[in-house]
Amino acid sequence: MLTKKRGKQTFTLANPPSIAGHANAVGKKEGEGPLADSFDYIDGDDTFGESSWEKAESAMQKRVLASALDKAGQAASKIDCIFAGDLLNQCIASSYALRGQNIPLFGLYGACSTMAEGIALAALLLDGGFGEFTAAMTSSHFCSAERQYRTPLESGTQRTPTAQWTATGAGAVVLAREGEGPYVTHVTAGKIVDKGIKDAANMGAAMAPAAYDTIKAHLEDTNRKPSFYDLIITGDLGVLGAEIITDFFHKDGVQLPNYEDCGVLLYDKETQDTHCGGSGCGCSAVVLTGYLLNGMRAGKWKNILFCGTGALMSPVSTQQGESIPGICHAVSISTLK
Amino acid sequence: MLTKKRGKQTFTLANPPSIAGHANAVGKKEGEGPLADSFDYIDGDDTFGESSWEKAESAMQKRVLASALDKAGQAASKIDCIFAGDLLNQCIASSYALRGQNIPLFGLYGACSTMAEGIALAALLLDGGFGEFTAAMTSSHFCSAERQYRTPLESGTQRTPTAQWTATGAGAVVLAREGEGPYVTHVTAGKIVDKGIKDAANMGAAMAPAAYDTIKAHLEDTNRKPSFYDLIITGDLGVLGAEIITDFFHKDGVQLPNYEDCGVLLYDKETQDTHCGGSGCGCSAVVLTGYLLNGMRAGKWKNILFCGTGALMSPVSTQQGESIPGICHAVSISTLK
Repeated sequence: MLTKKRGKQTFTLANPPSIAGHANAVGKKEGEGPLADSFDYIDGDDTFGESSWEKAESAMQKRVLASALDKAGQAASKIDCIFAGDLLNQCIASSYALRGQNIPLFGLYGACSTMAEGIALAALLLDGGFGEFTAAMTSSHFCSAERQYRTPLESGTQRTPTAQWTATGAGAVVLAREGEGPYVTHVTAGKIVDKGIKDAANMGAAMAPAAYDTIKAHLEDTNRKPSFYDLIITGDLGVLGAEIITDFFHKDGVQLPNYEDCGVLLYDKETQDTHCGGSGCGCSAVVLTGYLLNGMRAGKWKNILFCGTGALMSPVSTQQGESIPGICHAVSISTLK
Repeated sequence: MLTKKRGKQTFTLANPPSIAGHANAVGKKEGEGPLADSFDYIDGDDTFGESSWEKAESAMQKRVLASALDKAGQAASKIDCIFAGDLLNQCIASSYALRGQNIPLFGLYGACSTMAEGIALAALLLDGGFGEFTAAMTSSHFCSAERQYRTPLESGTQRTPTAQWTATGAGAVVLAREGEGPYVTHVTAGKIVDKGIKDAANMGAAMAPAAYDTIKAHLEDTNRKPSFYDLIITGDLGVLGAEIITDFFHKDGVQLPNYEDCGVLLYDKETQDTHCGGSGCGCSAVVLTGYLLNGMRAGKWKNILFCGTGALMSPVSTQQGESIPGICHAVSISTLK
């Protein structure tokens, strides 16, 4: 049976998998922000007891995987496969976190869209009958990202007003073929959208057209109106990107009454000096595995469209004068099947 | 219906997808090697008409995608999704190649196992009913890899005897829900295996234990003997890694009579000075999309176990004294369903 219409981007899950467990861990700054109550673990100095920022990032992933498995009541050996990736070159945070875990791994690279991409594939495999439990995991760390993508922390470089702050955090989700929900009901796979933005310090503007493209496709494919969702939330477009996507929809005559952005929610605009807000794979991962899924379980929302957004450039492509390809994967999560 | 047994690593495809089209492109050195006849396009100077090695790598991917689609007789708009990734930081070869292609993209990072990982997921989605056509693509380029992972080409650094040569090449495969084969019948997802090898110039030794682990799991899960396969072929363990895995199986009392390695096959040992042979995502991709699939179509082999192997370290993890996590994804390809 085909569960995707020809020419459409949306996969409809015939037997929506259940989110059986979810966990997160964050750094000090995130733990001082408005979502502090939704985090399972807040580290006091962002090292997570390790001797390098990269190892700290792996340590975060190990912690959230163990915690998500625990909440799902499953052993690692029960997980049919995990989808994981991160922002570090060659995704070492994920690979080193999964060393010795005895779980088949499909490595991903989707930049800040990784959590949505991972949940999408983990859900599709379960719905396809390929197992009983799957998982998705990702992370980012402000310090490892700054030194890899930008300038050494020690140089104290001033940030531009359009810049976003790479979140220190990791999130993991365990999906089950059967369970009490929330459920993953639809997946809209994103295409690359590149409108020519070349400023790597303005990723919100680079990613907003991709988010617009995927959300528009999702609404058309499912024949749903934005009001179907209690919340349409993008990964981390930040303050500027969120304005851009709202503006795009307004031009189509479409209102997004319940729209939010993980990057906007994660930090306090007035006191935390993150300019346009949060970014990084960990940003949408910790907002989803905390604020959003906790909120769904508490009855705050019934239907959420979680739209992970990624900017797929590298320092090398920026140096070579290339524009920034954006991508957005959307996952529809509902308390009812 | 569950098509994967609890605790096993192997997914059995109930309706094996058909390989509808496959194409490759390689550089000058690969085009002078023993598999020259199996390549669709050989570039004269490895630039593929571009101004940087990274752009050349993207150009290769664009070329092989167009060619694979053409051979499959499908337009890009018919492809439900593509799985792609490469070795460059943030996988820019793939992201830039897929800009403007209008195909939903799931980005992967699996190092040199990427082609096997991509085919695995592309096949699983089709078998799960999530579309009619999917694709997998990857690439590597000697010059972009050397400057990212090792030393600038201009310095002419001497290579160690255990080193492998990153292949310049790209491969793409288009899978169809229905067709005349060859068919993808089983997928064995790999776990990370790390036996403590720390020498980044000896990746064959780092990856061989992962290949052993996955092939062993595949044979156990499917209850097949190695002799079921006309060919069991690893991605790119190279000369040394191929000896190690053969040795591992010998210690178990298991003979691998039909074992080969893509990295060993790609270059001429005597005349091409690649030390332990080929490596890079492109290595197994071009051997599969040329020599192997052409051979299956010509009746040379009926059953192949294609085992992509990846070394998941980065220059940073090496500098931090970490050992190298290896992974291997195996895909069973047969001329009969």
